[in-house]
Amino acid sequence: MKISANSKRCVLSPIRKFYPFSEKAKAQGKKVYHLNIGQPDLPTPEAFFEATQAFSQKTLEYAPSPGMPVLLDAVQKYYEKLDVTLKTDDIFITTGGSEALLYTCLSILDPGDEVIIPEPYYPNYRTFINAAGGKICPLPTQPENGYRYCDREKIEGLINANTRAILLTNPGNPTGVMLSEAEMQMIADIARKHNLYIISDEVYREFCYDDSGRIPCMGRIQGIEDNLIIVDSVSKRFSSCGARIGCAITKNIDIQDALMKFCQSRLSVATLDQIGAAALYGVDDEYIRRSVREYRHRRDVCITGLRNIPGVMVEEPMGAFYVMVKLPVDDTDVFQEWLLTEFDDHGDTVMYAPGAPFYETPGSGVDEVRIAYVLEENKLKRAIEILGLGIARYRKEKMGIE
Amino acid sequence: MKISANSKRCVLSPIRKFYPFSEKAKAQGKKVYHLNIGQPDLPTPEAFFEATQAFSQKTLEYAPSPGMPVLLDAVQKYYEKLDVTLKTDDIFITTGGSEALLYTCLSILDPGDEVIIPEPYYPNYRTFINAAGGKICPLPTQPENGYRYCDREKIEGLINANTRAILLTNPGNPTGVMLSEAEMQMIADIARKHNLYIISDEVYREFCYDDSGRIPCMGRIQGIEDNLIIVDSVSKRFSSCGARIGCAITKNIDIQDALMKFCQSRLSVATLDQIGAAALYGVDDEYIRRSVREYRHRRDVCITGLRNIPGVMVEEPMGAFYVMVKLPVDDTDVFQEWLLTEFDDHGDTVMYAPGAPFYETPGSGVDEVRIAYVLEENKLKRAIEILGLGIARYRKEKMGIE
Repeated sequence: MKISANSKRCVLSPIRKFYPFSEKAKAQGKKVYHLNIGQPDLPTPEAFFEATQAFSQKTLEYAPSPGMPVLLDAVQKYYEKLDVTLKTDDIFITTGGSEALLYTCLSILDPGDEVIIPEPYYPNYRTFINAAGGKICPLPTQPENGYRYCDREKIEGLINANTRAILLTNPGNPTGVMLSEAEMQMIADIARKHNLYIISDEVYREFCYDDSGRIPCMGRIQGIEDNLIIVDSVSKRFSSCGARIGCAITKNIDIQDALMKFCQSRLSVATLDQIGAAALYGVDDEYIRRSVREYRHRRDVCITGLRNIPGVMVEEPMGAFYVMVKLPVDDTDVFQEWLLTEFDDHGDTVMYAPGAPFYETPGSGVDEVRIAYVLEENKLKRAIEILGLGIARYRKEKMGIE
Repeated sequence: MKISANSKRCVLSPIRKFYPFSEKAKAQGKKVYHLNIGQPDLPTPEAFFEATQAFSQKTLEYAPSPGMPVLLDAVQKYYEKLDVTLKTDDIFITTGGSEALLYTCLSILDPGDEVIIPEPYYPNYRTFINAAGGKICPLPTQPENGYRYCDREKIEGLINANTRAILLTNPGNPTGVMLSEAEMQMIADIARKHNLYIISDEVYREFCYDDSGRIPCMGRIQGIEDNLIIVDSVSKRFSSCGARIGCAITKNIDIQDALMKFCQSRLSVATLDQIGAAALYGVDDEYIRRSVREYRHRRDVCITGLRNIPGVMVEEPMGAFYVMVKLPVDDTDVFQEWLLTEFDDHGDTVMYAPGAPFYETPGSGVDEVRIAYVLEENKLKRAIEILGLGIARYRKEKMGIE
């Protein structure tokens, strides 16, 4: 029986790939510290549960396809505070940011169309783009340069007749790179000049660690109304990953028409979760500020720990809650399996996401890993300590280096 | 800016198309009876809300990508009662049956591949198939023959080198056609002989109105393990459309691999809704039996009412909660707009889903409509009465026929 070529080009999530090994390690009594998944541990605001518990209709009905008015209004007001003026018709509530990304790709990509993405990038982008028959055109970066990618010449050098869009995660997953306002303007200029879409994945928008208090949003830039599709989500902002509530935002009416077709085809997004998500947007801003302070502190703890490990190369990330790290090992995939099957320190071991699948360019990222600093301070310190001990022992036993 | 060719081939939902007109009619003080949407009005079992309200974790986390164990186990046990033996690995929890259909199409279809579907068919199939670059190959039926489609010669006559799958809704939406066991076996034989997938959309499985008590399921047929993908959902079975919980079921391991990639790419399905859905499967079977009795009664009320309208052609549907009806008007699209803008009976009017978009073949279904008999008896009687009055007045005023 035939399987589609597009699905063959998709891959399993590298973030979830070592799950069977970790289950086995846990079954053997090991404690596994998870630095592999961006699952925040902060409590979800009570407002979410209060709102879903207050639901009193007898029948749990379909919601309107582009989203419930109460949530569309809440999103609109939230953007108003960011100085981005939206009509509710510009907003399409989706099942997580993931569905927004898939529908965006299906709306704009024909088979063979290319999307420029700075690498390393969030690996699930590959599935959304491949599902539409598209192709990733990677914009290479260097760990030595903190994975910064905003170089006009390099970006324009990748543009050809098949180029349809530039996809950015800002702040970045997995790198934590944050664009300056000038860099965002440069991307906008390039998109306008070459008639490209900008898919701006801003689900980590508030998680910025410079001291400016700036909250980046492409939606503030004028003149790219027809180019821009913003992808957003409550998952990280409100520590509500399991709600699966996101949205796609665009002022391009052709894209709106296309998105509406996909939204109608799946009828609606879960009703209770939309009601809960609407309540999240009413939570005091101090909730987010406290979360950001916490993650900034964890970043500092994480970077300090990593810098104490000989041979590790890491730049301080300025946003999101990930850091891409170069380890002094031959292959972080092999090293991860070894950590789970052959290593422990007093029964403890650690997981990260191996770096190679974050790259399109073959051979890249083999000695890199993505670390999600989503554990509280003491666990994070211990996890990094284990990583250091593991590196030392692996280098000695497997690489023959003292 | 370019829009994808695949998205251009998709269409807006004909079921939701007259929404702006109905809003306007309501704003003018008219009461609109909705026979257009398959939104059941029966109460959702309390168990759903009790389970979601009992959720006590502080953080609403991602669930496992293929589904939460509690729900996978519940689905497995439910199928056991249908004499279908599944491993939980055969089940992929999805955001409604819709996501199961989209991921199935993305998993099996290359651009240009064809899917045989009896027409009239559920219009959203078009979007799922077009999203993958596929093409619908319609299997025509006749209202005069009750829209029955299971004709070996006709089906085999449509098969060519591009044919990849046969897609069935059993019991049928919009026709209510129910396949006999012999017909299901015939479809299975055809699929096996020609190496085709069977996508069996069984979300209306329990809604069968023959007296046999039979609950049809393709999963019971042996020898098509590699061909079969079942699409299922709690939406209709438990009157829980807004939960958006469905699943794709297959024993074909290549399809399982492909589905897993798509499931991982969107991380997970909403956590609370999965917990609620798991509880639904624990509800006493009497809940479903009562629902089925109620819909059977409504069907009878609906058919009796329709047969009292001169010139209407309708066959008694044997399952689901829809009926396809041929009206004595020139164009049911034009007639619907007229009903909403120019007609009322004591302030009341009615909506249905116009028939043409349920067909692939141009010109078909222009004088047909789909009626969803999801209103309680008195409302349903009144809605059909209004339809009859509307037909009489429209024929007189717009068609010049007394």
